[in-house]
Amino acid sequence: MKIAIAQINPTIGDLAGNAEQILAAAELAQKQDVRLLLTPELSLCGYPPRDLLLDPSFVAEMAAALQQLARDLPPSIAVLVGCVERNERSLSFGGKPLFNSIAWLEQGKVKQVFHKRLLPTYDVFDEYRYFESGLEANFFTLEEDTSEENSHRSPVKIGVTICEDLWNDEEFWGKRSYAINPIADLTNLGVDLIVNLSASPYSVSKRQLRESMLHAIVVRYGTPILYANQITANDDLIFDGCSVGFNRAGEIVCRARAFETDLLVVEFDERSRDLQHSSIAPMPETEDEEIWQALVLGVRDYTRKCGFSKVVLGLSGGIDSSLVAAIATAALGKENVLGVLMPSPYSSDHSISDALELAKNLGIQTQTIPIGELMQAYDSTLASLFAGTSFGLAEENIQSRIRGNLLMAIANKFSYLLLSTGNKSEMAVGYCTLYGDMNGGLAVIADVPKIRVYSLCNWLNSHTRAAISENHHSPFIIPENVITKAPSAELKPGQVDGDSLPPYEILDDILQRLVQNHQSAAQIVAAGHDPNIVDRVMQLVARAEFKRRQAPPVLKVTDRAFGTGWRMPIANKWVSVSSYQSGTIPAPPNRVFSSSEATTEKS
Amino acid sequence: MKIAIAQINPTIGDLAGNAEQILAAAELAQKQDVRLLLTPELSLCGYPPRDLLLDPSFVAEMAAALQQLARDLPPSIAVLVGCVERNERSLSFGGKPLFNSIAWLEQGKVKQVFHKRLLPTYDVFDEYRYFESGLEANFFTLEEDTSEENSHRSPVKIGVTICEDLWNDEEFWGKRSYAINPIADLTNLGVDLIVNLSASPYSVSKRQLRESMLHAIVVRYGTPILYANQITANDDLIFDGCSVGFNRAGEIVCRARAFETDLLVVEFDERSRDLQHSSIAPMPETEDEEIWQALVLGVRDYTRKCGFSKVVLGLSGGIDSSLVAAIATAALGKENVLGVLMPSPYSSDHSISDALELAKNLGIQTQTIPIGELMQAYDSTLASLFAGTSFGLAEENIQSRIRGNLLMAIANKFSYLLLSTGNKSEMAVGYCTLYGDMNGGLAVIADVPKIRVYSLCNWLNSHTRAAISENHHSPFIIPENVITKAPSAELKPGQVDGDSLPPYEILDDILQRLVQNHQSAAQIVAAGHDPNIVDRVMQLVARAEFKRRQAPPVLKVTDRAFGTGWRMPIANKWVSVSSYQSGTIPAPPNRVFSSSEATTEKS
Repeated sequence: MKIAIAQINPTIGDLAGNAEQILAAAELAQKQDVRLLLTPELSLCGYPPRDLLLDPSFVAEMAAALQQLARDLPPSIAVLVGCVERNERSLSFGGKPLFNSIAWLEQGKVKQVFHKRLLPTYDVFDEYRYFESGLEANFFTLEEDTSEENSHRSPVKIGVTICEDLWNDEEFWGKRSYAINPIADLTNLGVDLIVNLSASPYSVSKRQLRESMLHAIVVRYGTPILYANQITANDDLIFDGCSVGFNRAGEIVCRARAFETDLLVVEFDERSRDLQHSSIAPMPETEDEEIWQALVLGVRDYTRKCGFSKVVLGLSGGIDSSLVAAIATAALGKENVLGVLMPSPYSSDHSISDALELAKNLGIQTQTIPIGELMQAYDSTLASLFAGTSFGLAEENIQSRIRGNLLMAIANKFSYLLLSTGNKSEMAVGYCTLYGDMNGGLAVIADVPKIRVYSLCNWLNSHTRAAISENHHSPFIIPENVITKAPSAELKPGQVDGDSLPPYEILDDILQRLVQNHQSAAQIVAAGHDPNIVDRVMQLVARAEFKRRQAPPVLKVTDRAFGTGWRMPIANKWVSVSSYQSGTIPAPPNRVFSSSEATTEKS
Repeated sequence: MKIAIAQINPTIGDLAGNAEQILAAAELAQKQDVRLLLTPELSLCGYPPRDLLLDPSFVAEMAAALQQLARDLPPSIAVLVGCVERNERSLSFGGKPLFNSIAWLEQGKVKQVFHKRLLPTYDVFDEYRYFESGLEANFFTLEEDTSEENSHRSPVKIGVTICEDLWNDEEFWGKRSYAINPIADLTNLGVDLIVNLSASPYSVSKRQLRESMLHAIVVRYGTPILYANQITANDDLIFDGCSVGFNRAGEIVCRARAFETDLLVVEFDERSRDLQHSSIAPMPETEDEEIWQALVLGVRDYTRKCGFSKVVLGLSGGIDSSLVAAIATAALGKENVLGVLMPSPYSSDHSISDALELAKNLGIQTQTIPIGELMQAYDSTLASLFAGTSFGLAEENIQSRIRGNLLMAIANKFSYLLLSTGNKSEMAVGYCTLYGDMNGGLAVIADVPKIRVYSLCNWLNSHTRAAISENHHSPFIIPENVITKAPSAELKPGQVDGDSLPPYEILDDILQRLVQNHQSAAQIVAAGHDPNIVDRVMQLVARAEFKRRQAPPVLKVTDRAFGTGWRMPIANKWVSVSSYQSGTIPAPPNRVFSSSEATTEKS
């Protein structure tokens, strides 16, 4: 029996467009004699639909679209479609009004509906905001079309799981996250095959983790698994695809492409009750390549799904904007990227020459708009009010905000999407200007720590042709000087990041421990960091919360990004307590929000 | 037996400060012979602590602070303190790692810990992100100190509930939200009194709803209830206090003040097993008065808790900024509010005179900073790039962003908190400039629809003395011309809001149905609205999502505010589908994100 996975790219809320993608995949699959087609979780409405689910007309239209899709599909193929179903018991017995569901469509009808049992409510997930847990193990039995020569074969009992249903193997994780284990329930019921329909947000190396987990589950339970994932980016979340099949021995027998749509066909042999070897797409070879591909997809899909074709960004000659320009060029083509140079009297010569060299390497257009006149106009406008004060953070921020305004003016005038270019290290400690360089519809690398920015640029320079399908004159896409010079915001003469921040090797390690690993000040100090630096970084991270709250969506590539999975109070006094109460660190000189620092922008 | 409610104002994460507030209330209560003191939900850490709960050192410090508080409290008084407790079973049996808990402290020890049973995951609530549901009904038995003359009295059996535990009465709501009803469980156990420790976010008229519900529960189950709420504002959420007691007959016997800290003492008579009549604080008389008081608290607490003492805002002479200036003056005192006038060549004469008159009425300082020179500098800087294009939204937005930059420059230079002044109607349809008039640390009235802005100003003008404790020269705080003139952004000659938007009476009614009531286009049209206007408004609301994502925290005063309780995808195609598929409305001329409009700001 042939089974296929439609690794499609749904758009949130586009019921007709998503149904069309499913239909096209089904027609293609049917031509290959596929008996069962899998689609990703919530494939009909796109994942995550978020508060659209609170709109009763959205739910009603989805139900109608599902019925229509059932009628439109070829009758001889069974298709599992992700959708929501109303929980009719909820009014009388309590519980959420919807189920996160899979509908089995065949012969023009909805034959059965299955409900997701484990509902994640961590990181970016809010599923219990909308959904009730399914109470029963989900399975169905599929027979070959009896008109075929294969009618002597026995029917195949297929267990159906949805995304999180897989992620509760206490042997693999060393702990339980949920009281029940849907996989154990299904193997107890003697299913021949488990299918999992997922929308599993990308983070670096998550595929390897997922495949290790799938391997462990298959080996433990002795049941082959087919895992279907969507490939798409919806706002901050990227989905990598890499749909995969494991046979009963725990071997990978098939795998779909990373970050690209695909139709993966595999044979389930009804005599051996196992999946047969099929095609295995190659995967990105390094973390850098993987992150690069993720970010390219993130930019392409956000731009396209928001109705834009062109993007604009500021080119400072620095490494962050250089990387974002390269990502945008790979995502949209060189003719759809405009780089804007906005030199000030504090800009170094190389900031111009490096930016122009980069643009030439990428083949993108540039505009150069000096901001000196505007700086003078702000100085003159504020002269009497600021009289007697010295040049400081307010003036530095004005420069950044002039640039932010110019970029928005260009975006507004010519219908470009503005991309912001700040990295995660800056966003963490607030070394960025709200309403200035933070401006944009999408924060492309704000989940990429600075050290990773360097390694991505180095990877890119050694994989130019693979990364951007253009012929380049220069052997390097990112000019060497961009990579080797000291990072600087160039908002005052001679400024470098190191004036305000610890070296990025140290900062990024502290941030990794603090943001990703939930370590305390004492633990980070115990790992060998200077207590004063740890304390300072913790203060900066807490103090910058008001900026992050107003940031654009951040493309998520780590397991804890700033955005929907980071929900911190702004007005809070925890850090000031925690750091000096830990006993290892002297009391900090300032409160979390000292009146002299809370509004400052560049650090 | 005397019982008291400590209606305190906790700060998120300020374990020592919050413990101090509880201690001070306990010492005051002890002097009045109080046997049992109630504090609000999570009183030790403040509600909502959000992702601070993912930090193990935060949880550990809270546990230590609870032990310390137990030792510090007077030994003869029992105190119920809101805190978290670890779920020790979670690693082996699944479930979340924490409980939302109440600790009974007495005689230097933690005598018992109770767990919240119903965990809300709607609107602004994410409790299942952190907490596991308590499985058991919570109660304890309290005896009078046996050394007292009252030792002949029988012990009192007290049922303990936490906030949401109350909110599942299917008779009152006409439906169940949860499978279990903790109140029914407690009355089955024969408790004498139910206490509820809450942190229930304010919205307009919620107190009346809450008291109706409490009345219904008391009458149904025949058990008196004491309800303790916090009074505070934490980021977007305001909490109104109004702690209240109902006797068995369903009468209100005591009530604490609205929007102010209080210590409410009431007698539980051990013979009649009922609460006795005590003091009842007067409540705000109108919705306008209530919203006014809520917003004043919201501004005061956010400013104070973020470490600021002074605020700045732009004064346009319009009604929105006038109202916010009055709120800020009431919250912080006239000496702590700076109004900035930033006239352009398009500003009307009255915009200056009205703003100055308002400032004079309030007694606040002003600065006037004309922006003409900056507008010219932007024109000149962008001249060659914009050559051949006509004046449009890009140029309108530049003006707004100049003003936003000047305000941030002043805020940065002199350590002011910038308040943004946009109303909910504007935020809904995107009639506001991102990085311009949306700038600020707090969006004070962004959950107040325009029509309510008018009624608040009219209420204020007839209640001047009550609202701001100052003597005013003028009989009106808000100049009459501000209220009577046509609203205008004044970004081009002769512009009024009516050029771009339907009349606010119509717009606000459509928005109420769409945003608050989850009505479909068909339902809104059926209520009598013009299909073309409904369609246009729905498009605008969807299209403005990218702006709202980058807005400051919005003080919540309705039951659905833009902010933590509004989680919409940006890149989504639902509205374009829904409006024309409903059948009653012709297909819209544009996609949700047409390339020509998606970046426009002032609609």
